[in-house]
Amino acid sequence: MKRLLDPAALRALARGCAVLGAGGGGDTHLGLLQALQATEDFGAVPLMDLDELPDDDLIMPCGGIGAPTVSIEKIENGDEGPRLRHYLEALSGRRVAALMAVEIGGGNGLIPITWAARMGLPVVDADGMGRAFPEVNQVTMHLAGISPSPAVMTDERGNLIVFRAVSADWMERLERAAAVGFGGTASSAEYALTASQAREATVRNSVSLAISIGEAVGRAEGDPVAAMIAELGAFRLIAGKIQDVERRTTSGFAAGSVIVAGLGRDAGRLVRLELQNENLVARERSRVLASVPDLISVLDSETADAIGTERIAYGQRVTVIAFACAPIWRTEQGIAVAGPRAFGYDFDYSPVEELANAR
Amino acid sequence: MKRLLDPAALRALARGCAVLGAGGGGDTHLGLLQALQATEDFGAVPLMDLDELPDDDLIMPCGGIGAPTVSIEKIENGDEGPRLRHYLEALSGRRVAALMAVEIGGGNGLIPITWAARMGLPVVDADGMGRAFPEVNQVTMHLAGISPSPAVMTDERGNLIVFRAVSADWMERLERAAAVGFGGTASSAEYALTASQAREATVRNSVSLAISIGEAVGRAEGDPVAAMIAELGAFRLIAGKIQDVERRTTSGFAAGSVIVAGLGRDAGRLVRLELQNENLVARERSRVLASVPDLISVLDSETADAIGTERIAYGQRVTVIAFACAPIWRTEQGIAVAGPRAFGYDFDYSPVEELANAR
Repeated sequence: MKRLLDPAALRALARGCAVLGAGGGGDTHLGLLQALQATEDFGAVPLMDLDELPDDDLIMPCGGIGAPTVSIEKIENGDEGPRLRHYLEALSGRRVAALMAVEIGGGNGLIPITWAARMGLPVVDADGMGRAFPEVNQVTMHLAGISPSPAVMTDERGNLIVFRAVSADWMERLERAAAVGFGGTASSAEYALTASQAREATVRNSVSLAISIGEAVGRAEGDPVAAMIAELGAFRLIAGKIQDVERRTTSGFAAGSVIVAGLGRDAGRLVRLELQNENLVARERSRVLASVPDLISVLDSETADAIGTERIAYGQRVTVIAFACAPIWRTEQGIAVAGPRAFGYDFDYSPVEELANAR
Repeated sequence: MKRLLDPAALRALARGCAVLGAGGGGDTHLGLLQALQATEDFGAVPLMDLDELPDDDLIMPCGGIGAPTVSIEKIENGDEGPRLRHYLEALSGRRVAALMAVEIGGGNGLIPITWAARMGLPVVDADGMGRAFPEVNQVTMHLAGISPSPAVMTDERGNLIVFRAVSADWMERLERAAAVGFGGTASSAEYALTASQAREATVRNSVSLAISIGEAVGRAEGDPVAAMIAELGAFRLIAGKIQDVERRTTSGFAAGSVIVAGLGRDAGRLVRLELQNENLVARERSRVLASVPDLISVLDSETADAIGTERIAYGQRVTVIAFACAPIWRTEQGIAVAGPRAFGYDFDYSPVEELANAR
């Protein structure tokens, strides 16, 4: 065991998950409250390294799916994880040994901890993205050729759906339609895999990374935004205020755009963020400042707390930062699955550090 | 065995299913072509009375779900039935002994025959509606308290979904969302039941009824529409031409309205049909001429072939008829599930014969 996820670790984790969510993954405040309560009720959850688990141990990647704008009103009741596990075990004929966040970003980095506490299971120090992405197939397990089937989805009422899709694209399409049917969000598990598979097919140590980010910012004296930028090796795109938000909940996503108007040394600049659950692209006029798969996060300029796309609002004073994604997303296959063209944009991916140096 | 469903029986059945569809249930021409081909390839399907089956035999109600407007372009490949059966058997731990049309109306009255031919299974002389209705829970099995779970859904590509819903309403909502995800239509099986349950929980002899309707019209000399009206004990609402069609494919349904302008002795009259897959209500000015759960069908004035809501078009010469539903739909519970208010209308159900006598 690497550590027990005590309340202090969970608070730091929530802060790290928020910035790694790139605007998405759901609300970390709600996720933190749930994890703190479950930890108080059932005891702290052990964080395990994948090397500590026997090769054949079954890991259940899990989290929420749907529009973050809905997830802040339609809240899990806590039984979802045990139900997903029950059906996954029945379908696979095997015991689940540990849970894993399908994405470390946002509230989805915390939900598996709530469920693991209730089940007395550990969580592994890894996830399927190293950030948050909007679509089911945008995970490292997909890049590694692991099947998303059988996927299991449930809701707070007790409905349960099992999916066996002919491709990862069809899994995304069917799970998304079901999430809409559930009212906009649901809980799901897909891409179940063994510990030995997970050692090659996940972003490792991402829980520890999120905790250390949160701890570094918590320790910072003076300027938390500067501490966050230093900890992440991030680039500062603009500091200013939110001038406009155009956001709709559609087809199981929160989509739209945000305009940030520069203040202080950025006065006169306008940066536009385009979003689909996550912040996908930051542009200034026609120039791309950063894009998926790199991470674009909007920080509160006072506290450095990252603001999710569902909470962003007119008048907030923010600093927009961008930083490098996990290396796997910069491979040809990673860019094909989660680069700009995968989201319908007509430009090629350039790493954020190259874009920053060209400015 | 009551009879073998030979090509002549299938042709008569298709004609009967069309008029019992009340505009819905999908295209009977496509359904007939598929059933004829399967019968030629695999042999004729036996039609069994429910009394011939042992009490514990498992019956799989099945058919298509979604918008008929889509189903005429997105066509089954024939493997759907065997796949639904495979998963239903795995989930229930029991062998499927016979198939049953979930609704006798439209192409859905024929689809189970195509699948049964491929599997060497019989079909039973019964269905879950005695007509077609748009929603999953509008079946006699629901009225009898039989659970829709586990429901199984698949498509022509091989995707497979299993649903366990907390209520019949949730099953409709989740299956509908999935049908939209599949592209507008899918194939499904739900409300699996035993032969002894089916004897009380279905509309019996509806396959035989549909065949005898088709045979009667086929034998008619002179006026096929008059023969159809006589065979059904139907009421003639108007004869005229289609003057306007407003139809959209939305949320997994074909919805809209149709205006029929009277010709000949009906000149000057206008009758409006309101539809959701099926013809729900016929009105003349503010007066209701007929409504669900009674059946409203649009016949070609020359041939008496019923025209589905997905094929209805400007200029067609038609005779609109209405006739009584199966008695179970006129019970308090039946009207609650499939009467006007179940479709959002703000008026109470009146039997078509009372409305006709009041004119």
